[in-house]
Formats: sequence, structure tokens, C-alpha cells
Amino acid sequence: MKKIAICPGSFDPITNGHLDIIERGSKLFDEIRVVLLNNQQKQPFFTIQERLQLIQEVTKHIKNIQVDVHSGLLVEYAEKVQACAVIRGLRAVSDFEYEMQITAVNKKLKDELETVFIMANTAYSFISSSIVKEVASYGGDLSGLIPNVVQTAFEKKFK
Amino acid sequence: MKKIAICPGSFDPITNGHLDIIERGSKLFDEIRVVLLNNQQKQPFFTIQERLQLIQEVTKHIKNIQVDVHSGLLVEYAEKVQACAVIRGLRAVSDFEYEMQITAVNKKLKDELETVFIMANTAYSFISSSIVKEVASYGGDLSGLIPNVVQTAFEKKFK
Amino acid sequence: MKKIAICPGSFDPITNGHLDIIERGSKLFDEIRVVLLNNQQKQPFFTIQERLQLIQEVTKHIKNIQVDVHSGLLVEYAEKVQACAVIRGLRAVSDFEYEMQITAVNKKLKDELETVFIMANTAYSFISSSIVKEVASYGGDLSGLIPNVVQTAFEKKFK
Amino acid sequence: MKKIAICPGSFDPITNGHLDIIERGSKLFDEIRVVLLNNQQKQPFFTIQERLQLIQEVTKHIKNIQVDVHSGLLVEYAEKVQACAVIRGLRAVSDFEYEMQITAVNKKLKDELETVFIMANTAYSFISSSIVKEVASYGGDLSGLIPNVVQTAFEKKFK
Amino acid sequence: MKKIAICPGSFDPITNGHLDIIERGSKLFDEIRVVLLNNQQKQPFFTIQERLQLIQEVTKHIKNIQVDVHSGLLVEYAEKVQACAVIRGLRAVSDFEYEMQITAVNKKLKDELETVFIMANTAYSFISSSIVKEVASYGGDLSGLIPNVVQTAFEKKFK
Amino acid sequence: MKKIAICPGSFDPITNGHLDIIERGSKLFDEIRVVLLNNQQKQPFFTIQERLQLIQEVTKHIKNIQVDVHSGLLVEYAEKVQACAVIRGLRAVSDFEYEMQITAVNKKLKDELETVFIMANTAYSFISSSIVKEVASYGGDLSGLIPNVVQTAFEKKFK
Repeated sequence: MKKIAICPGSFDPITNGHLDIIERGSKLFDEIRVVLLNNQQKQPFFTIQERLQLIQEVTKHIKNIQVDVHSGLLVEYAEKVQACAVIRGLRAVSDFEYEMQITAVNKKLKDELETVFIMANTAYSFISSSIVKEVASYGGDLSGLIPNVVQTAFEKKFK
Repeated sequence: MKKIAICPGSFDPITNGHLDIIERGSKLFDEIRVVLLNNQQKQPFFTIQERLQLIQEVTKHIKNIQVDVHSGLLVEYAEKVQACAVIRGLRAVSDFEYEMQITAVNKKLKDELETVFIMANTAYSFISSSIVKEVASYGGDLSGLIPNVVQTAFEKKFK
Repeated sequence: MKKIAICPGSFDPITNGHLDIIERGSKLFDEIRVVLLNNQQKQPFFTIQERLQLIQEVTKHIKNIQVDVHSGLLVEYAEKVQACAVIRGLRAVSDFEYEMQITAVNKKLKDELETVFIMANTAYSFISSSIVKEVASYGGDLSGLIPNVVQTAFEKKFK
Repeated sequence: MKKIAICPGSFDPITNGHLDIIERGSKLFDEIRVVLLNNQQKQPFFTIQERLQLIQEVTKHIKNIQVDVHSGLLVEYAEKVQACAVIRGLRAVSDFEYEMQITAVNKKLKDELETVFIMANTAYSFISSSIVKEVASYGGDLSGLIPNVVQTAFEKKFK
Repeated sequence: MKKIAICPGSFDPITNGHLDIIERGSKLFDEIRVVLLNNQQKQPFFTIQERLQLIQEVTKHIKNIQVDVHSGLLVEYAEKVQACAVIRGLRAVSDFEYEMQITAVNKKLKDELETVFIMANTAYSFISSSIVKEVASYGGDLSGLIPNVVQTAFEKKFK
Repeated sequence: MKKIAICPGSFDPITNGHLDIIERGSKLFDEIRVVLLNNQQKQPFFTIQERLQLIQEVTKHIKNIQVDVHSGLLVEYAEKVQACAVIRGLRAVSDFEYEMQITAVNKKLKDELETVFIMANTAYSFISSSIVKEVASYGGDLSGLIPNVVQTAFEKKFK
């Protein structure tokens, strides 16, 4: 049976850190589903449509991938696509505890869905979508931290 | 002299994790005061009245308990009821540092008031009122994590 | 291509926590190799032969598993069996940092070998081989924390 | 060449913890620039003008100091004043990870700017501007945690 | 029924940090049992007899206290003296995880025995018996960190 | 007055992580003293003489540096050379707490000696002398993690 894993996130925007986890994950499972969660109360910077397009653009070199948008509980999406695992990147101790909580809740909601963690590449371990947005808002140079198309997307927004 | 301990919180809503700490604390001290803090700037999900009622309902089997609402500094409440201790549950490292800060501030404000910590039961170590609210808002099944009356209260809200 | 993952450890002795990670890992990959590392300077409690036998005994219900002993760098073993991933259990923040270090070193030694982490079941998050040995040495009851055959092995040693 | 270090912050308001770090930092470098960052989206409690005045008041006994306001990236300010280092206080593990992230981003933006950390005095390790504001809003006694002029400033606000 | 709490440790030697926890604990429970655990494999610096005497000396002003030596599992001692709680001091995050593990194991061995934690006084949060021994071995001044009789005991050893 | 900072350690052996901290520290202070502490009970891998020579070799491009050996308390050495600061590298949360303890003890022994921390370069954040020794003992390739002369020194030892 084909082993499918999902990479969930709000990707506002996708960073080189996210991309690294997705690429590495795609080698461990038969199929990867990147799932853009459309749940946040907080106002996003990029629209769902913009974020979806950026993810598709920067992951188009990965063969066994599909990008989806989902509203609702992650376990429902996992059920629908028959995923056996959720892939999450871990950067720091503070990530770890939050992820541990989410993982335990998901396990309670759907016991057979495993969450597997991959350590972030040390070169990206300090990047997050929020710090990227903050630096971009002051015009700081983010080359190397985000894909070029995301840099271009920021430039359009701030111009 | 009777030893009184207080269990403060916003309890929005009370979870099985809270209840476990309250029950275990009630065996260590002569009297327990659960104190619902009415201070938060942030908008609560359940009203003070609803939260008070839920706490009273789920703790009614505990004999040496009283539930109160308090606005203002916790040390003032402790002074009023002549409590010797504050009881707090610890779930994770991130709790720990925040609690350490609050404890030090309370000690500065009232030196003889001790704060004692009880480790959360591992079965509940991942539950918090906020994750409970998030899962409930998507209709996820929370049985075992919150008391039945709280589950019913959620159903009324979301129906 | 078959995806092989390895579960390394000193397993002195194997606990229910280890077993839980191995069972869950075996559902994510096509084949699992449990590899007993024979490298420690420190004196083990059970011999390599005893530990190997205990692992084989308690994992015999898992179909896609093989148990091996290895002396030397883990990446050499991974190379030999053509594994794509190392599976590690994470119990606590202190695990996390040590694992992050080992993971980064292994990645430096062999870039294409991924390490994936699975959160320990909260029921086992406090067990380690060392605490198990300490409690066993005082005759404490470990039922539920270690497999029955391990309990028997302890009883033989301490009798 | 004169070694200049900068102490950035929002200082809303300055606490005895901040002051301790500034005083100790002023002995390690030839000149200290306290820089009040005017970037936060969130509504401050004291205005930029009030905060600036409070900092100047409580640091006037330090000879090699200058207080500035800056809007924009910290590295731009560092460039302008030709600072070689940023000084930050560390109080707790949770500080540490956030600071590690900011430090890495600043290093990416300007490699030759070092960030040096000084451990908070244990007497102040639990104070933060936010807890100070919360306690002050309930009229709690903060003597010893904030300079007298800050206490007076609070009294004016809450009267 | 009288509420008895135990303060376990190896106390090699007792520090002002230990003493602070014992004194504060003695106000929360009807009776305190300090229990010197005689289990360590590692070679102690002070003999059991010396450590016992030092503890008795520095706690003689506390009325509701008794000092004991115990070999074996802590839960057996708790059973014998009918204690309802174990008191432990918490200094740092690294303490926290180790204590969480011990607490969970003790709860498994004897469910009704609670472990309550008291945050170390910030003035003592950096002292441990091991650092005290290291500094003493180089003749460093420890006044304020250990009771005077312990200082004298060190001087005798190193003279 | 000339500002002198000391970089203490056991450097068994010096790694690229140590070297990075020393180089960066040498730009912040007028003079740097690398001090090889000769205190450890534990058996070192390289002798004091070998370690001293390796440090001197790999730091000879730094102008304002001197390398010393010291037995005894670090504060005594600081006193002798009239240093105003100790420089320490921080790699991870677990480092942080240990360093916080040492810093507080040193501050108690000599209040005017500051300890300043520099975050390890993310490229070296996972290296430690002990992991370097372990990998070297199995013949793993350490290029990029340790200076070439250290690699040669290992090869001589293991040949």
C-alpha cells in the first residue's frame, strides 16, 4: 500500500526552511501532500490563493507531491487522503513543546496517524514566516532564506 | 491552624487536567479555594458565570473546596482567605518558566505565600483550555479530556 | 525501491517505550532494522547476547523487522543495509537537544540519511533504561513499563 | 578604534533588570548606545517620548552612554553608529531561543555585528516590562523592581 | 489526620538552597521528614554520618522536623512514615525534566503519594552540592551559599 | 584602560566551534587570553602539552591573543591578568543552564568579573569536544568541524 505523508502549515509565506523539510520528506514517503491550513483567526499577510501559488511554484521540481488547501481539523484531511503520517520540522526547543501538544491531540483524535519530525537544517533553523515578514517589511535582504519567487512577491506587496 | 491553599486560573473552560490537579491538591491541604480570576484583557469564550457554574458542577464531589471569583492581584485574595499556598499544575518546560516568573513576583508582593507545583498527570499533559477550544470549534471529539458538562456546554455554544 | 529505516540503541534493556516506537515505526516504512549498538565504553547491565535475545523475543510479532548488532559508526550500518532513515523516539526537551546534536553529526557524515523522530507515547514518556535498572535493583514493580520477558530477566539477575 | 555597543529594546518601561544590563555593559565597551526601537505594531503603554525621558533620567549617572530612538532594522542603526556589538540580557531559557533567532537573522543581515549576552542578575531574572505593567495596573508594590521615576510615571498614569 | 511530607536527597552536603526548601516546606505540612538517601553508587564526599549530623545541626530550629536515613526505594520510606507528599526544590529547566521523570516513576510505584515542587529562592538557584564541592576544593569563599557548620566541615576535610 | 577578556575551557581538543568564538571575541576586546583549565578529575584524551600546542597553532593568526594554562579557580586567573570579562559560547538550551550556574558562582566569587556569551555559529552548533572524540575513535571524517592540525593529531593517536 502506498505510504502518503502530509506536510501541513499556514505557509505565510513558504520559506527555504519549509522547502527543505518538504524535499527531504518527499524522499521518505511514496507521496507527499502539502496542505495549506485555512483555519487561522489571525489576518494572513498573503492570501490563500497567493500562498498556494507560491508553494506550487517552488515545489514543482518534486515529482511525488500534491498541494491542497484544507479548512477544519488536520485529522479529517489525513483521513480523506489516507495518509499514514504528518511531517513536521523541528527547529528549537520551543517548537518541540508546542508540537508535542499538537501531536498528542491529533493522536487522541486519530490514533493511527503518526507524526514524524525532521530536524531543520541548521542553516535555516532561525527562519520563521513571521521573522521573514518582519525583516521584509523593513526592506532587509532575505536572499538565501526564502525562494526567489517569494522575494518577488514581497517586493510587489511593499512597493 | 487550618492550612488553606488556592487554585487560581481563568478556567475557560475547566479541563480534566485542571480537575486532576484540584482533586490531588485537595488531599494535601485542609481546604482548597478554587479562584476564578476575572482579570484578563482578552475576550473569554465562556462568561464568568458559565465558568463558575462548570467548576462548581465538576468539583461538587470534593468536600473541602470552595469556588470564588476574584478581580485584582492574587496575593490580595490569598490575604483575604488567609491561604498559605497557591497550587499550580506543571505540564511542560514552557509552563515552568512562566510559572517561575509569576511565583517570583507573588513572592515579592507577599513573601509568606508559597507556590507549590504538582506535575500534570501524563494523560492530561497536552491539554490546555486553548487547544480544547480550538478542537471544539471544529467539532473534534474531546471525550476524556474535558468533563461531560463542559462538552455539553461546548455543544450548546456551537449549535 | 524498498524504504528501510533503522532503530538504533543500546537497549539495556528494551522497555515498553522502545517497543512502542519500533511498532509505530514499522508501520511507516517497508522494513525496520533494530540495531543494537555495541560501542559503549560504560559497563552494560545485560550482555549483548541477552539484549539481542530480549529484543528478538518482544518484537517477534512484527513482520517487517530484523534485529542486528553493530560496532562502529551508525552511518556505516545505514550504508550497508541501504537505509534511508533513522527512527528515534523523543520523550523530553533534554532528549531533543542531544538528538539534535547526533542528527547533525550523522548528517555531516552521510547527508542523504534522514533522522525522523516520533514522540513517545505519554504513558511511557518517563521511562528510560537507566531508571528501569535503578527501580529493578531495589525490587520495585515495573509491570506495564517493561515487557514481561525483561521483568523475568531482571528477576534472574537479582535473585 | 573606539568599541561601541548598542542596547536595543522597547523599554516600555525600563526596569531595574534593563538598567543592570546597561550599567554592566557600559563597563565592557568604550561607549554604549541605548536604542529605543520604535517598530512595534502593538500599542505601547508609555509613549516614545515618555520612555526616552525615563531612560535618560535613570542612566544619567553613566558617563559613556547615549540614548537614541530608531525606526527600522537594528542593523541599520548599528551601521550608522559603527557599533561592533549588540548587548542583550538573558533571563531564562525561553528568552534564549528567541534571542538566538534574532541574533542569527542580524548576523545574516550584517555578519560583522556581534551579539553578546549578559545573564540577568538573579534578583531581577523574573521581571519583564509586561509583568511590571500588569502588577502596576492592579496597584501592586513594585519598589526594588523598577526605578523610582518609573514608579512615579505609573502612578500618574493610573491616578 | 496529620499531614506528613518528606524531603529526600543525598545532601552531600546540605546547602542554603536545601535549607530554604526545608524551612518553607515545614510551614506547609504538619510534619517534615528529611530523608537522607543512602543509595548512590557514586562515592560521596561526606559520610552518611557526617551528612546526617550536618542536617540535624542546621535544622534544629525547626520544630516539626525529623531527620532519617533510608536505603531503598523512596516510596517504601513514604509508606512506612505514612507521608502524603514528597517536597522537591526546582531550580532550573534541567531539574524540571529529571524531576518529572522521578515523579512519574514514584506515582507508578505508589499512586497516592504526591510530589510537590517549590521554586528555589532566586538567591540560591545556582547552588548545587556538586558546584559547592568543586569551589570548596579550590578554596573559594562559599559564605552565604552553605551554612557555617558545612563551611567548617569542608575546612576540616581540606586542611 | 585596556579591556582584557578570557576564553576558558578544557579544549580536549579545540574545535572549529571554539575557534570561531575565540576569533569573534578577539574583535570585541583589546586582548584575549585563552586559558586552558587544568582542573578536571576526568582523564583527558590529549595531554595539557598537546592541547596547548594545538591551541597555539590554530590561533597564531590572531594578533591580540595569549594562551595560558591555569590550575584552580577561574576568578583567580581573571584577577591575575586583570580581565574584565569571560567569553563563553552558547550552543543550546542545555549549555545555557549550566553556564548560568557557573556564571552566578563566578559572580558570587568576584562580582566585577562579567561573563559575556556569544551564540555559536549555526554551522558549528552541534560540535563538542566529546562528540568529536567519539566520531574520531571510529574513524569518521571530521573535516570542517576541527582544524586540520587537530585531525592530524587524532590520526597519530589512533594509528
